[in-house]
Amino acid sequence: MLNEIRQQPAALERTLAGARRRLNEFQRAVAKQRPRLVVLVARGTSDNAALFGRYLIEITTGIPVALAAPSITTLYDECPYGAGTLVVGISQSGESTDTNKVLEQARLAGALTLGITNESRSAMAEIAEHLLLVRAEKEKSVAATKTYTGQMLMMYLLAYALGGSIRKLSDLERIPGAVAAALKLEPAIDALSERYRFMRHCVVVGRGLNYANAFELALKLMETCYVVAERFSSADFLHGPIAMVETSFPVFVFAPPDTTWPSMSETLRKLAGLHAEIVVITDSANREAKSIATRAITLPKPLPEALTPIPYIVPAQLFAACLAQQKGLNPDHPRTLSKVTLTL
Amino acid sequence: MLNEIRQQPAALERTLAGARRRLNEFQRAVAKQRPRLVVLVARGTSDNAALFGRYLIEITTGIPVALAAPSITTLYDECPYGAGTLVVGISQSGESTDTNKVLEQARLAGALTLGITNESRSAMAEIAEHLLLVRAEKEKSVAATKTYTGQMLMMYLLAYALGGSIRKLSDLERIPGAVAAALKLEPAIDALSERYRFMRHCVVVGRGLNYANAFELALKLMETCYVVAERFSSADFLHGPIAMVETSFPVFVFAPPDTTWPSMSETLRKLAGLHAEIVVITDSANREAKSIATRAITLPKPLPEALTPIPYIVPAQLFAACLAQQKGLNPDHPRTLSKVTLTL
Repeated sequence: MLNEIRQQPAALERTLAGARRRLNEFQRAVAKQRPRLVVLVARGTSDNAALFGRYLIEITTGIPVALAAPSITTLYDECPYGAGTLVVGISQSGESTDTNKVLEQARLAGALTLGITNESRSAMAEIAEHLLLVRAEKEKSVAATKTYTGQMLMMYLLAYALGGSIRKLSDLERIPGAVAAALKLEPAIDALSERYRFMRHCVVVGRGLNYANAFELALKLMETCYVVAERFSSADFLHGPIAMVETSFPVFVFAPPDTTWPSMSETLRKLAGLHAEIVVITDSANREAKSIATRAITLPKPLPEALTPIPYIVPAQLFAACLAQQKGLNPDHPRTLSKVTLTL
Repeated sequence: MLNEIRQQPAALERTLAGARRRLNEFQRAVAKQRPRLVVLVARGTSDNAALFGRYLIEITTGIPVALAAPSITTLYDECPYGAGTLVVGISQSGESTDTNKVLEQARLAGALTLGITNESRSAMAEIAEHLLLVRAEKEKSVAATKTYTGQMLMMYLLAYALGGSIRKLSDLERIPGAVAAALKLEPAIDALSERYRFMRHCVVVGRGLNYANAFELALKLMETCYVVAERFSSADFLHGPIAMVETSFPVFVFAPPDTTWPSMSETLRKLAGLHAEIVVITDSANREAKSIATRAITLPKPLPEALTPIPYIVPAQLFAACLAQQKGLNPDHPRTLSKVTLTL
């Protein structure tokens, strides 16, 4: 897992460079069919990348986005997606049976379909009309890391293809460097993780473009450290679950500066009042976050908020991998799990 | 909270009887504008009712449904919803600022709007073009119960207005009776709850039409019992989080017979193999669920799966209220929370 986390700058560069030709082709299809609705379908870590995509696409294109509930198709035999809809399947292996079933039914019903996967010879590559490849090379660890950030990068390209008002593609080239800078935090994060050796449960909070990262850190903590890790937006957290928080209750918070900070700082002030153990993931441009936290993981290179989600997940991945080791666990082979999960 | 749980048969009957006139009016607007997309926007318990509505509407009407991410509008200043879209706000108080902001912006952009609330003189009643009232009477407990089932009932009426192939409205009249029958389980559930006096964390699993109930039981356990309660679909649970499960790890499972049972029974068999503590909420038609569980809460009156979600949440509400008392807590006034939560 740690090795694959470290491979991310190179994987992101490869993925970005490799996508251009197929992206142009897909862009022409989009220009022709002008989808009025985008549907993202995925499971597990890929579903967290989809959650990021949902925010990015709505914010930058104004096109409504839904995350598919695969059981509507696989169990209830209904496919609500047809002409006028773009359905995007996301799967590391390309073999997720339920994701592929939704793609297949939607394509039959006249939807434009796109697959995002690591595997050019997977079932998904056959089923989807268009394909974008994450070039992260083989991911051996059961806990996905480099494929998550690769899929997130694809969400930017997808938003771009849909006419999104995001910064030009060339700006995305800043991301691999920011990830490389984040990786330098590894020794500090390893030292920090010892403090959480006996942590049994926690909450992870994010908002807006970093909301999906809260899901992803929680999932990594659940699957590699066996920590019962809840995940919420700061708004949903205040609507009930914050009642769980007592002195020393651990809460991890993604706290970039700018757009989401007023909402997040309100949550942090409440948590500080409850004497929670607050760990913020932030950058050097947000001094206020650091001052309110019990512990801060501070990225050295501030970026515009729209570019923070990929670099911000990197210290979280490192934290989960280091904490698993502190707990005497092997993060590459969590108990009970296998790399490809097939579900009804 | 217990009193309000017990009021549900009467509240559901009142809500059903009171909705007809406004429902007809709304139905005419739907027939005229024929929405191609339904968007549900809510927070907290109301958002769990929305999650139920998402499944019910997609399954019965084939119209795609999205759950709004309010921050897209409140923080990022984008509203992806306009003409051709029905936007439905759900709020007990009708005063949720972020829910109302999305409704307001969508109406300005040309969307058909509907408010579902308990309060006919709330801000939501002014903002939405159409209104459906949950007639649950004043809810005093901070933990919502009778308004949740009232909102769920509204989701059936909404599906019906959208042309859903659900059982005729008269079938919904079976629900209050099934809820009354479920309420008779209170003494048994109170006795059962003692076993969980020292439970600190757990997982709640649901699928399809009962997926939202997993969110709702988890929320009740978090806000009234301070239990760190995760919630998953059975499919998502197998994609990683199941790694947390060790001997005696408590997992609560909504297990109606029929459509979702093949998927749920696969999950239950895995959990049994891991020696988890399995509590199923099921009915007398599903003997297999009972045989695999550590403890079973069995509803006496089996119903078609489409009608199970409201009766199935009732024993879960009773369980949370009884467990809070076992833990020496007051479920009506959870620490840190107030009845109306305003968020950015």
